[in-house]
Amino acid sequence: MKASVIGASGYGGIELIRLLSNHPDFELHAVYSSSKDGVPVTEEYPHLAEICPLPLTKIDAEEIKSTSDVVFLAVPSGAAASLAPQLAGGHAKVVDLSGDLRLKETEDYKKWYKKEPADKAFVSDAVYGLTEWNRENVKTAKVLSNPGCYPTAALLGLAPAVKNKIIDVKNIIIDAKSGVSGAGRGLSPIVHFAEMNDNFRIYKVNEHQHIPEIEQQLTWWNDETAPITFSTHLLPVSRGIMATMYAPLAKEMTTDDVHALYTETYKNDPFVRVRPSKQFPGIKEVAGSNYCDISVDVDTRTNRLVIVSVIDNLVKGAAGQAIQNANIMFGFDETSGLKGFPMYP
Amino acid sequence: MKASVIGASGYGGIELIRLLSNHPDFELHAVYSSSKDGVPVTEEYPHLAEICPLPLTKIDAEEIKSTSDVVFLAVPSGAAASLAPQLAGGHAKVVDLSGDLRLKETEDYKKWYKKEPADKAFVSDAVYGLTEWNRENVKTAKVLSNPGCYPTAALLGLAPAVKNKIIDVKNIIIDAKSGVSGAGRGLSPIVHFAEMNDNFRIYKVNEHQHIPEIEQQLTWWNDETAPITFSTHLLPVSRGIMATMYAPLAKEMTTDDVHALYTETYKNDPFVRVRPSKQFPGIKEVAGSNYCDISVDVDTRTNRLVIVSVIDNLVKGAAGQAIQNANIMFGFDETSGLKGFPMYP
Amino acid sequence: MKASVIGASGYGGIELIRLLSNHPDFELHAVYSSSKDGVPVTEEYPHLAEICPLPLTKIDAEEIKSTSDVVFLAVPSGAAASLAPQLAGGHAKVVDLSGDLRLKETEDYKKWYKKEPADKAFVSDAVYGLTEWNRENVKTAKVLSNPGCYPTAALLGLAPAVKNKIIDVKNIIIDAKSGVSGAGRGLSPIVHFAEMNDNFRIYKVNEHQHIPEIEQQLTWWNDETAPITFSTHLLPVSRGIMATMYAPLAKEMTTDDVHALYTETYKNDPFVRVRPSKQFPGIKEVAGSNYCDISVDVDTRTNRLVIVSVIDNLVKGAAGQAIQNANIMFGFDETSGLKGFPMYP
Amino acid sequence: MKASVIGASGYGGIELIRLLSNHPDFELHAVYSSSKDGVPVTEEYPHLAEICPLPLTKIDAEEIKSTSDVVFLAVPSGAAASLAPQLAGGHAKVVDLSGDLRLKETEDYKKWYKKEPADKAFVSDAVYGLTEWNRENVKTAKVLSNPGCYPTAALLGLAPAVKNKIIDVKNIIIDAKSGVSGAGRGLSPIVHFAEMNDNFRIYKVNEHQHIPEIEQQLTWWNDETAPITFSTHLLPVSRGIMATMYAPLAKEMTTDDVHALYTETYKNDPFVRVRPSKQFPGIKEVAGSNYCDISVDVDTRTNRLVIVSVIDNLVKGAAGQAIQNANIMFGFDETSGLKGFPMYP
Repeated sequence: MKASVIGASGYGGIELIRLLSNHPDFELHAVYSSSKDGVPVTEEYPHLAEICPLPLTKIDAEEIKSTSDVVFLAVPSGAAASLAPQLAGGHAKVVDLSGDLRLKETEDYKKWYKKEPADKAFVSDAVYGLTEWNRENVKTAKVLSNPGCYPTAALLGLAPAVKNKIIDVKNIIIDAKSGVSGAGRGLSPIVHFAEMNDNFRIYKVNEHQHIPEIEQQLTWWNDETAPITFSTHLLPVSRGIMATMYAPLAKEMTTDDVHALYTETYKNDPFVRVRPSKQFPGIKEVAGSNYCDISVDVDTRTNRLVIVSVIDNLVKGAAGQAIQNANIMFGFDETSGLKGFPMYP
Repeated sequence: MKASVIGASGYGGIELIRLLSNHPDFELHAVYSSSKDGVPVTEEYPHLAEICPLPLTKIDAEEIKSTSDVVFLAVPSGAAASLAPQLAGGHAKVVDLSGDLRLKETEDYKKWYKKEPADKAFVSDAVYGLTEWNRENVKTAKVLSNPGCYPTAALLGLAPAVKNKIIDVKNIIIDAKSGVSGAGRGLSPIVHFAEMNDNFRIYKVNEHQHIPEIEQQLTWWNDETAPITFSTHLLPVSRGIMATMYAPLAKEMTTDDVHALYTETYKNDPFVRVRPSKQFPGIKEVAGSNYCDISVDVDTRTNRLVIVSVIDNLVKGAAGQAIQNANIMFGFDETSGLKGFPMYP
Repeated sequence: MKASVIGASGYGGIELIRLLSNHPDFELHAVYSSSKDGVPVTEEYPHLAEICPLPLTKIDAEEIKSTSDVVFLAVPSGAAASLAPQLAGGHAKVVDLSGDLRLKETEDYKKWYKKEPADKAFVSDAVYGLTEWNRENVKTAKVLSNPGCYPTAALLGLAPAVKNKIIDVKNIIIDAKSGVSGAGRGLSPIVHFAEMNDNFRIYKVNEHQHIPEIEQQLTWWNDETAPITFSTHLLPVSRGIMATMYAPLAKEMTTDDVHALYTETYKNDPFVRVRPSKQFPGIKEVAGSNYCDISVDVDTRTNRLVIVSVIDNLVKGAAGQAIQNANIMFGFDETSGLKGFPMYP
Repeated sequence: MKASVIGASGYGGIELIRLLSNHPDFELHAVYSSSKDGVPVTEEYPHLAEICPLPLTKIDAEEIKSTSDVVFLAVPSGAAASLAPQLAGGHAKVVDLSGDLRLKETEDYKKWYKKEPADKAFVSDAVYGLTEWNRENVKTAKVLSNPGCYPTAALLGLAPAVKNKIIDVKNIIIDAKSGVSGAGRGLSPIVHFAEMNDNFRIYKVNEHQHIPEIEQQLTWWNDETAPITFSTHLLPVSRGIMATMYAPLAKEMTTDDVHALYTETYKNDPFVRVRPSKQFPGIKEVAGSNYCDISVDVDTRTNRLVIVSVIDNLVKGAAGQAIQNANIMFGFDETSGLKGFPMYP
């Protein structure tokens, strides 16, 4: 199956190249960029020397949709709103990694992204690809909207608790921390090495565009969910997200009870690892892999549940989950091309 | 005034040496270590070559209390419980940086530190040196218990809100992140560079010994305070703490209202900087300095207040605040020896 | 083919596990450790949760040599000297990653490693596995001595120049820099995160045990080679080596001439990438992969050749090259199991 | 004495602000920037909140030269060539931190900097401020040219060997490594945190503009000096330079002999610390301070001398040495305002 990557000069794009190049069922067919027509991808990314001979090519939606079996759209939010509809409806299935097709209420998109939304009906038809919780719809998706990195970490951590109503969904607090690649390759003093090194920042306080995405999914699971508090921080690491989540228990449960629920919930999910009680994951323990590792702990003093969830933001938070979804869309094994181990240390 | 440092081979100890060596009012008189009798401090710390000729000397409480005007006790928790009483009661004033004299309920110490507590009456007399909130008692203290690094960041951030009852003190959540020096110089795979680099960990979930210290102070300010949820994470940086704190507002207030309250509260405190609305501090912006920088933001969607507080764990969180307290104990200017700027970048 | 790993709790060991677990031709059969009998490998390395169910098992040479087809020996230098001979001579082929079988002059081993050498005849029979330059002998090796990480980077960079006599082999200077994993998992203040972070150190000046290994190979290529100067530094990164090498040109050549020689030399080597003139590799551009990237530049002012060579010390400098050699020893494709891309960023 | 800083929005500029703000003899009078007229310096650098109330002001040479006693010019190379002459000749003494006044042969400037040089006579009159080796001329300087960061580290390390003719000055190789702040605050993918983190790069191979500066000084000391080989690398740290230097010995000397020579040479220099034999400095051991730490080692196998020299590129390599020179120009104690200890860890 021929796979193309649009937006190949960004971090999501090159991670797709890394994973697709060793995929047994997809063949990396072509890589596109809006701004670098004709430039070899190795000029932007010398680490691909001799292993990715493809040139970056100008985006031609008609040509792409007829020559590719699947298109991964890894352009910035805002660009996909118009591009995805052009790519859809033909031969190619579309997997969109931007935020443009995630919010069913397009007014929410306008408010949080401060950009023009995609066509509401088109967004409505796109399948939200939080794989572990939406496999049936993913199977038949023609246009798939891949979840954001933060929402992936947060939602996989919260899902068993919210769906099973063991926590008070009116009091969920998510304190999330991300590696710098999550901010993209754009340049600013914030990401200057000399200033981010040995530093740690909080940003977009109470304003992050992933808030409505998380709330939308939580509400689908439990419509009593109230607005969440969600904070985002920048870690001095290249990759990785940890979401530390807090909510009051709605039922009397021990750590072991909650742990058993989580273990049972994810027992057939190849990429979710529920850690033993009292063992908590570091982000490096999933680096480079498609795993989401989760720990839970009940604080008996406060009757609050603490949930910790880690992913690699570029893999399970972007390119890896996109391929996991594509695998399902094409009937391949869900883990195809994603069996790489975390790189440690 | 002659200042001595006990426990000079730890990170708190050498930071005291750095700050005391350029202090206009204290003279660094002697440095002590339980295990390194006769070893020049430069053997442990070559960065002190030619500028700290002192040898590490065996601890002799009688000699120390008679020859020093002030003793900074920077030994690990557990060791100060017996040592502090030996050093007290003589000529020297004692500033203890360990956790041994902080918890007035010595049963709490036993429970959280899992060690034998110091004598309850002795602990009772020790003055808790959260400088900005206890200056009057610090002035006359003979034995001062210096706050922990996490409690300093958390309490300075929470104080105006808790004292002025603008938040619901039954629902305080503190998500704290610390640089690796906070874990001390002891060796373990956790602090091995190859494994901590590019990593981020959560640890001691719901079990950190700073929990009762924070609760004790909050209760003094507002006795309705319920147990807090307090999480600690390890950042891949050498120094710095950020505490991100969440609580429901108890009154209707805007960000500007809360900001005004904080600004007013700390207007005369030379080491607390309340940042302008919508500007949030990174930990590097206080590195090497005694500043605590604080930002506040009201989330109108959830009616929760988010408070962000950053310090350098070795300065305002340890050696710097200890010297700030000693300045007050001796009638010096509170900022004496602490005017160094943050080192940036 | 059944592959076993001895010394599986070290960094070389777990990298072997990572690479062998996705190898199409080898099956990871068992993992051994001298000190952790019965401990699941996931207890030491939680990132292997659910993907490496093997327990660490006590080393039993007789059992191992009869049940494995190939044994990777990743124990510290000193331990392999006695263990390798016990493992050899049976069914299993042996690939030794320690330094114990590299120096044909066992007196040199004694001098530089300050340990007892292995039996001289045994060492003599071991094939030195600098793959690109010794494929014929590797093919038939029963006991293979895998090169050191620094020697791999240095020798691949120097080989074309030394063999073709374009540089003065009496004046070779190698300035090498390594990530911290190269120092192993042993604990010391040197590798404490708080002290290695934002730091850079030089160590073992003029005393590194890889010096005789490099000289031995250079002399095989050109017996006029004089003792080299070789310096080693520790970089604040987890992985990666750069060797920057200097030697006077022995012939009049331009950068383009030298570049052409290098390109021609390595044109059939899948894991050596000679970079275009004026493009120099960063260590991150090979991270996680088996590549060695090389650049050359002639300084016309001084008539010296500068050669830059980078590898991932745990892959091409250890586990990757070991597997590359094993592939050849068993007649598999040289790149089998090693097609993973560098992980960037 | 009133001190002004021009180019205050760069890293050299804010380091001057940090050091001048606590200087007992200079008062920070005003800060200037070519592009940020009226912007508070705290807007660019929030770490200066409440401690540097000055606004960045447009550069007006006439006003500056009449109101300041000393002007520190920290603008990029190229800008000082025209600005320095405008500032000179009036009341204010000028300390230029750019490279524009360093190369007495202005043709060399043109060749290496690829910019228009300053007036040759003006450059000729500027005193090269390698403090330890030019104090007499510094005393009377009206216009001082502060050395580059790499040259400072390299020259202080080489000086005793070159001046005393103990090394072959026709075969000097300098392998230098710098923290990222040395590249300035300008943005590029090279300094993007996600790509520089866990990375190490070599750059400007055989083309660095500090080459002629080093050669000029070495030739002044020994006119037989041949062109040097000088390589520059970028370390994933914010600050610090290490120069590792190699040259054949010209005389028979032991490490102890060379060590004695270095110790004797620098015995009266407060900022040069010659380390004990076999002890080598890490860059963190001088971070934040004006020290240059030096170690020497003779390799008896090759008869080469290895010299290691470390500085903080922003202090001894820029702002610190500039102030050290200004102290001498004004008759203050050489160490005035520079007594800060290294910040460790």
